Amino acid sequence: MDRPRCSALDAEDPLAPLRAQFVIPDGVIYLDGNSLGVLPKATAARLQQVIADEWGRDLIGSWNSAGWIDMPRRIGDKIATLIGAGEGEVVVADSTSVNLFKVLTAALDLQRADAPQRRRIVSERHNFPTDLYIAESLARERGLELRLVEPEDIAAQLDDGLAVLMLTQVNYRSGRVHDMQAINRAAHAAGALVVWDLAHSAGALPVHLKGSSAADAGDFAVGCGYKYLNGGPGAPAFAWAHPRHTQRMDAEQLWQPLSGWLGHAAPFDFTPSYRPAAGVSRFICGTPPVLAMAALECGVDTVLAAGPLGGMAALRRKSQALTELFIELVETRCAGHGLALHTPRDREQRGSQVSFARDEGGYAIVQALIARGVIGDFRAPDILRFGFAPLYTRFVDVWDAVEHLVQVLQREEWQEARFNRRAAVT
Amino acid sequence: MDRPRCSALDAEDPLAPLRAQFVIPDGVIYLDGNSLGVLPKATAARLQQVIADEWGRDLIGSWNSAGWIDMPRRIGDKIATLIGAGEGEVVVADSTSVNLFKVLTAALDLQRADAPQRRRIVSERHNFPTDLYIAESLARERGLELRLVEPEDIAAQLDDGLAVLMLTQVNYRSGRVHDMQAINRAAHAAGALVVWDLAHSAGALPVHLKGSSAADAGDFAVGCGYKYLNGGPGAPAFAWAHPRHTQRMDAEQLWQPLSGWLGHAAPFDFTPSYRPAAGVSRFICGTPPVLAMAALECGVDTVLAAGPLGGMAALRRKSQALTELFIELVETRCAGHGLALHTPRDREQRGSQVSFARDEGGYAIVQALIARGVIGDFRAPDILRFGFAPLYTRFVDVWDAVEHLVQVLQREEWQEARFNRRAAVT
Repeated sequence: MDRPRCSALDAEDPLAPLRAQFVIPDGVIYLDGNSLGVLPKATAARLQQVIADEWGRDLIGSWNSAGWIDMPRRIGDKIATLIGAGEGEVVVADSTSVNLFKVLTAALDLQRADAPQRRRIVSERHNFPTDLYIAESLARERGLELRLVEPEDIAAQLDDGLAVLMLTQVNYRSGRVHDMQAINRAAHAAGALVVWDLAHSAGALPVHLKGSSAADAGDFAVGCGYKYLNGGPGAPAFAWAHPRHTQRMDAEQLWQPLSGWLGHAAPFDFTPSYRPAAGVSRFICGTPPVLAMAALECGVDTVLAAGPLGGMAALRRKSQALTELFIELVETRCAGHGLALHTPRDREQRGSQVSFARDEGGYAIVQALIARGVIGDFRAPDILRFGFAPLYTRFVDVWDAVEHLVQVLQREEWQEARFNRRAAVT
Repeated sequence: MDRPRCSALDAEDPLAPLRAQFVIPDGVIYLDGNSLGVLPKATAARLQQVIADEWGRDLIGSWNSAGWIDMPRRIGDKIATLIGAGEGEVVVADSTSVNLFKVLTAALDLQRADAPQRRRIVSERHNFPTDLYIAESLARERGLELRLVEPEDIAAQLDDGLAVLMLTQVNYRSGRVHDMQAINRAAHAAGALVVWDLAHSAGALPVHLKGSSAADAGDFAVGCGYKYLNGGPGAPAFAWAHPRHTQRMDAEQLWQPLSGWLGHAAPFDFTPSYRPAAGVSRFICGTPPVLAMAALECGVDTVLAAGPLGGMAALRRKSQALTELFIELVETRCAGHGLALHTPRDREQRGSQVSFARDEGGYAIVQALIARGVIGDFRAPDILRFGFAPLYTRFVDVWDAVEHLVQVLQREEWQEARFNRRAAVT
């Protein structure tokens, strides 16, 4: 493998034209789309339209005339096509953390009604912390147990004490992918419900939330708008509930706890009592953040643009090729520099990122790479993390990133003092 | 009173130059800033900067270099100066509904620890529904009573069963203002905590959350970014907690239930257990929505611009003069048309809006006014509501709005079929 061969792979890549949808700064090799997706070219003009025409000129009339009030459902329907959910099953609202609170509570409420003896929430010890913090809060309030285990120990937790299994499909540190269908099947056979966080899945790989039957379908899910969906910093998140649960919640007047007015069945009747909207709309809470929603829609549209070129399946193949190339190049060209692969070598078990562990200097190496325009990130205590968003990452980017890494390591640039200050945010 | 006299009032108005901060469409008299504030001129350029430079060019580096991570506290500190709160006591995050869930839970948790026999939440029957829905949800989960009363019956509720009194300072329908200090004092004397919603207060009138002593200070508050703060449709909301409560929560490891990662004491340590940040920062939950935050900051700055011209006190005086003029003109020029003042006549008890009740035709009258460019709104079943944001509303606007209203009523325009269709959102 060499750089010309990488250029040839780009020339052959049917998805290559999708990169033109984005603003990518000159001199930057951006391997952090798993933290913050890049800016779609359409976003600036769309936001100007929303600001000047919809807000500035048409003012409150835009809640109807510009469809602001429908944004949570309209954008939700677009995201649904990327995650194997049905129309009317996904809403965009709030943050991933807030949505997780909603769906985890809903799942616990269903179990409290059906199987009150199930008093345990299980998750992964290295799940993203916000998920663990939200679960910890709910467990504390309700006197439940939150048990954190290693991924290989999940199967042993599927017993009659388990209420809810809460997992992130792709681990934010290791990039390891859970087999969603197999886990759903096993959890359901054991009487548990499964809540999925798709933060590192949506827009990165095909997701089949509804599986092929109720047995291997998930129960609830949330996900992030600002990573592979390119919705902008802090973009709104999404929530999904399997229709079998929302239908039952309709009948039994179960609702999620963040019962804000726009999740009401008739918000503009201004009635004093809460009556949840039918279906997933009850997971909407407050007034939608229109500017952020509009930016998210531009981002989601960049993923939908891959549809005619093979969609998520094609993006997944490219992502696997990119990460495989990166692993191969780092392991050959950086051998002896202490980088240990922390991501599964099996492409089917790997998300769209590659992580390496290094005993020391990981933070400084990432800083030295950033100084060279290669943007990855560091996750304490020892993980160098590189994301390969298949919508806009090229094979030559992989080559060039590794070339920079080779130079940083060989020249020991990372030992320079300026790279060894810890920043507040990495 | 006549139109030239109104023009003269505008010419004498020291706050008149503040109107130049805003985009106000030609031909529009906007009396709905209590629903959605108008667009500040600065917002479009600022959002372009955030989109193109901070997100597009600097990417994740902007969490530090552009201060994104500090936005909840920085904008919170600006809002604090408008509501009588101290530095470091306010954060911007999420929606009003979500923030109310946080602070109401925190207040209930404090009471559960101190006075578990207090099992009642009291609010106003005509409080904004989202507040009631959130309280209903918490009361249901915890087996508490939610009692809704008329404003004149609140005093009778201050007994030893009351845990939390939850009020909106300015009622969204009637515009009636509660005497915050007096209510805080009476509630505290009775052992209750008070949670305030400042949705129709912040930016509209001086608020003194901390009062003159602990006795007449509030306990918790939330408020809205998209009304008088001009933050844009669905702008993020804010939350305030009195330092005596956050200090105690620090010591006792009480936390609010939406324990997301950015409310953690050390979010970038990625520890599996939640440890709340000191002070009000624990009321932050997920990743801040940067685009929406930037727009909100532009809006807050338009209110801060009144500081050298007399600040909130001067804005309040103008607001009272505007609403008084509107009442006087409607009552004299529209007499006999069935409009009954629904807003307190006493200027000290009136927020920055005027509502009239009418037995029939209220919706159609508002629609006929909108067709003429006079934008107010209708609140079911019978309220015509007109907001007078003192930052940009002129005395001639009041005159002209009433002139249009006179014509609509005299010509019976509102009886035309096209004005009688109910829209989804009013």
